[in-house]
Amino acid sequence: MCGGIGSRFWPYSRSGMPKQFIDFFGTGRSLLQMTYDRITPLVPRENILVVTNSRYSDLVREQLPDLDPARILLEPDRRNTAPCIAWAAYHIAAIDPEASIIVTPSDHLITNEPVFDQCVNRGFEFIENNDALLTLGIKPTRPETGYGYIQIGREVEPGLLKVKTFTEKPDLELAKVFVESGEFFWNAGIFMWRVGAIKAALHRYLPDLCSEFDKGLDLFGTPGEKEFIDSTFPACPSISIDFAVMEKADNVYVECVDFGWSDLGTWGSLFENSPKNIASNVTQKCNVVAYNSTGNIFMAPDDKLVVVSGMKDFIVADAGDVLLICPKTEEQRIRQMVNDVQQRFDDKYM
Amino acid sequence: MCGGIGSRFWPYSRSGMPKQFIDFFGTGRSLLQMTYDRITPLVPRENILVVTNSRYSDLVREQLPDLDPARILLEPDRRNTAPCIAWAAYHIAAIDPEASIIVTPSDHLITNEPVFDQCVNRGFEFIENNDALLTLGIKPTRPETGYGYIQIGREVEPGLLKVKTFTEKPDLELAKVFVESGEFFWNAGIFMWRVGAIKAALHRYLPDLCSEFDKGLDLFGTPGEKEFIDSTFPACPSISIDFAVMEKADNVYVECVDFGWSDLGTWGSLFENSPKNIASNVTQKCNVVAYNSTGNIFMAPDDKLVVVSGMKDFIVADAGDVLLICPKTEEQRIRQMVNDVQQRFDDKYM
Repeated sequence: MCGGIGSRFWPYSRSGMPKQFIDFFGTGRSLLQMTYDRITPLVPRENILVVTNSRYSDLVREQLPDLDPARILLEPDRRNTAPCIAWAAYHIAAIDPEASIIVTPSDHLITNEPVFDQCVNRGFEFIENNDALLTLGIKPTRPETGYGYIQIGREVEPGLLKVKTFTEKPDLELAKVFVESGEFFWNAGIFMWRVGAIKAALHRYLPDLCSEFDKGLDLFGTPGEKEFIDSTFPACPSISIDFAVMEKADNVYVECVDFGWSDLGTWGSLFENSPKNIASNVTQKCNVVAYNSTGNIFMAPDDKLVVVSGMKDFIVADAGDVLLICPKTEEQRIRQMVNDVQQRFDDKYM
Repeated sequence: MCGGIGSRFWPYSRSGMPKQFIDFFGTGRSLLQMTYDRITPLVPRENILVVTNSRYSDLVREQLPDLDPARILLEPDRRNTAPCIAWAAYHIAAIDPEASIIVTPSDHLITNEPVFDQCVNRGFEFIENNDALLTLGIKPTRPETGYGYIQIGREVEPGLLKVKTFTEKPDLELAKVFVESGEFFWNAGIFMWRVGAIKAALHRYLPDLCSEFDKGLDLFGTPGEKEFIDSTFPACPSISIDFAVMEKADNVYVECVDFGWSDLGTWGSLFENSPKNIASNVTQKCNVVAYNSTGNIFMAPDDKLVVVSGMKDFIVADAGDVLLICPKTEEQRIRQMVNDVQQRFDDKYM
């Protein structure tokens, strides 16, 4: 899934160049490319699909030159994850009705890939032997209030459990209780299922969407698919797969995993996941000379010099035409700031 | 005088484009051009000399296109104000040994030009009738610790007094005493004298420099002047006219004036002299969206958007390849920061 716009990472994440296409760590690979690199050992290259917004078609082709362009599904509109996943499921079913699927966002960070590989292989084994909608639950390392949590139920195999409930972003008090209880895991938005299982769930919980898609059943996997989607997709409800399906279905399982994961949803999470210098500052790309400044994250165009004094726990993000300076504690307000900017300047800085 | 590099205004003031050449107020005129505009009603255009460093020759020609290039004196090296003023005096003496001179920095701000005009005309009248080295003393409006002060002595005409002492930058305690006493005025570095008076003083207080210049006496005002200066100037001591002459001579007078003056020596003085918005922020050139931020000065390239939250009394100066973020209270340390940057990156960001 590669169609989001990552507005909390503005001004780096822009509508024309969202977060997943950015080389956030200065490694030479964007988050999308890192995700592709992570998946290719697990899934045959020709079976990898990228679902993205049609405006990012060129970016995906450019960043993934060895991906067959026919494997890029272009959404004509943004409709959150459920219609995206539904389309991919119909597309895959037309090619192989017995397929097993892993669905993954393209803008997350995973630091321990060997463990990730083991978990994914274990998950494939599970969904191939069970009628299951499987989600990966990340062992929480702190009372994070920016994530959704999964409460675990009955264990069916070691590390594989029924899901009891999904809980949206809790407040800090509740998040602390969650983490201490040992019963709650972060919802990473990485899902595994057989194509039949997800199609069945979609028919049950999104019957209107499926009845529309079923009208074009013969077109999926053919040259007529694109035209069909372009006319059908915009009428789909904008809804997440969590809300539409996972929170309702009764065959939802969680694999409890611990492979160093971050959704990189915010500047703070980039800070947490980046190496810090002796003054606990994080520097991306630019040169920094800092006086009496700690706990900041600095990001600026290649080779720019940032000289700071007296800054504590700030985000300083210089994206060329936009400079954002904001306390890390205020990062949840960045989305509102982006709205304010759009209201004042239209799409100029979007 | 147009040869300084204004390092306290880094990163806007750069060795290749110092402060005096910058349009700091977004008016379309640089400080040099504003100075030229201020002087042209008082001094015939053909009598205006610009003394600058040879590397700024093109900048001066470009910014003052109607100044005859022969009126630009190019210093081969930076030697502070005394050698600069001495050269100009020798040059002018060769053209008109009876000339009256006003010497002015090219990077100051004067807000009340009609009063400035009156003061200058009054000053010319005084030096033409007295053997005087005249300096303009600005009525202080606050206990500024960044300026030198002039203590006044006996009044010889209304508003024209003998100078008792010059005092370098005082501490805050002393500055308060100075301002309350009514006896102290800011030393603006604007001087007026007849060419004979300054040459006599230079011979007395800088005899070595004058004996060198005297060797080329026939060359000033001729095509041979440049070569002579290029070989003589670098051996001159680097010394200010205040220290070399004004603090020593006994015919030094001050005209006490009040025409809205700032040396614009620092970001803080630019802040003080700029219009503020409702949140007491100053914005130069860029667009600013500020949350919970007051008392800041923002300067960034044309049309850049600066979004800030939780900043109080900061300088935010984005000069394209360098971004400076520094509390206004730390602005006296900018010079040291520039040194640190030079040490680490050589001349890359100078």
